[in-house]
Amino acid sequence: MRTDSPIGSSPGAIAIEEKGSGISDGSFSRGTLAIIGLGPGNRDQMTGRALQAIEESDIIVGYHTYLKLVEDLIAHKDVRASGMRKEVDRAYLAVDLAIEGHKVAVISSGDPGVYGMAGVILEAVQLRQAQEKVNVEVIPGVTSATAAAAALGAPLMHDFAIISLSDLLTPWDLILRRVENAATADFVIALYNPKSTKRVHQIEEVQQLLLKHRPASTPVGIVRNARRAGEEKTVSTLGEFLNHDIDMFTVLIIGNSQTYTKDGWMITPRGYRW
Amino acid sequence: MRTDSPIGSSPGAIAIEEKGSGISDGSFSRGTLAIIGLGPGNRDQMTGRALQAIEESDIIVGYHTYLKLVEDLIAHKDVRASGMRKEVDRAYLAVDLAIEGHKVAVISSGDPGVYGMAGVILEAVQLRQAQEKVNVEVIPGVTSATAAAAALGAPLMHDFAIISLSDLLTPWDLILRRVENAATADFVIALYNPKSTKRVHQIEEVQQLLLKHRPASTPVGIVRNARRAGEEKTVSTLGEFLNHDIDMFTVLIIGNSQTYTKDGWMITPRGYRW
Repeated sequence: MRTDSPIGSSPGAIAIEEKGSGISDGSFSRGTLAIIGLGPGNRDQMTGRALQAIEESDIIVGYHTYLKLVEDLIAHKDVRASGMRKEVDRAYLAVDLAIEGHKVAVISSGDPGVYGMAGVILEAVQLRQAQEKVNVEVIPGVTSATAAAAALGAPLMHDFAIISLSDLLTPWDLILRRVENAATADFVIALYNPKSTKRVHQIEEVQQLLLKHRPASTPVGIVRNARRAGEEKTVSTLGEFLNHDIDMFTVLIIGNSQTYTKDGWMITPRGYRW
Repeated sequence: MRTDSPIGSSPGAIAIEEKGSGISDGSFSRGTLAIIGLGPGNRDQMTGRALQAIEESDIIVGYHTYLKLVEDLIAHKDVRASGMRKEVDRAYLAVDLAIEGHKVAVISSGDPGVYGMAGVILEAVQLRQAQEKVNVEVIPGVTSATAAAAALGAPLMHDFAIISLSDLLTPWDLILRRVENAATADFVIALYNPKSTKRVHQIEEVQQLLLKHRPASTPVGIVRNARRAGEEKTVSTLGEFLNHDIDMFTVLIIGNSQTYTKDGWMITPRGYRW
């Protein structure tokens, strides 16, 4: 046993200090960053780990629209809400608070690793050289594509591609190339962020591009607010789906060559023999 | 009020019969089919709805490997376990039990709509013409791709494709075409079922195909038992990843042209300006 310990020479005191160093479990003094996926929104679609991690956190960082989904759970916590397109600011804020030793929860809807906060937070950890200073956990959640699929039936039963139509951070040509390649290889396609008040032409171009490769009768599922309050779903076709309301809370699922609709369900068979 | 009701003329009696018909909430007499995604396996990665639906069910149908993940929850229920590749038998069994009026839970790992039981169950409902006879609910879960991504950091932050390398039900040429199209459109690619004891050449062919379109230094994440007991993760490269153990419990994530590794994390930037 070391006798020059500044804490004292009893094993108990040393054990406490070892815990305090945060190396063993990070429960004392060392900051934590929990990057949490809420899932689609309904409370019963959250995982136990997501609920627990919110409970364990002292400071909650997120986009205010998503924080509303858990406002009862964070009512007595230090909440740092911010607006859309503030991801970089939120990331630095969360990382800096964790470096100070706080227990920080960063809230994403769906899965934080799918167009969510996981990437930007990990980049900020590196830019702040905080890798050795904080414990990071990414907590997955049910992503919108599978929540929407569950509402529609079983449209994602075969290989599929997830593509965001938001061209704020991605060149539009690259997005179109992905749509076209996915179409020609007969992927089911889930489209996130299909349309906003300012972005309206993108989904029209995508429809025209898909119609070059798939028949107008191809099923298209439209799900707004999948598995959260106000869920609405429609099964339409590639030729007709733009006649329905589509916004940023909508996920579109474009069937592959085998997808069919029956009794209101949208189903992509996997190929079992009956 | 109708006076020729066979049930009786009191509103109360009619209300009870309406409940009994199962139209209002399905809680009496009408069979139910809950198609449940357990998520990756760890109990705290399950959603509340999945736990609740197991609790509400009388009969549990599933592949025995997955049923083991919840054996404590189903110990006192009527459990119908079966083996691999018995999906069609399981689907008919579940649907027939629901038609008889039972509360049936069908268990999938991950999300039941991603290579799980959702499609085959809905097809069986139609083949049995049971659409009007049973209530069906698909309960999404955290799918392996995002569970594996959470373990690796944030590799799925941009558009991605999910492809199963199992060619039992899908022509191998189509699988290769999907891999190639995903590669040329710079999708991140998550590979399910990459290799089994009997299927070994497929992943080698896929590696060679990917190497035609992406450099050998491209990051490849290898996650075995993502977010369940025995989780193991490695970050390798497209040139080297076959030197690591890969099996049916492994998910592979192939980076896109922007993906990088740092401090053991695998990150695909979304394109934020810092």
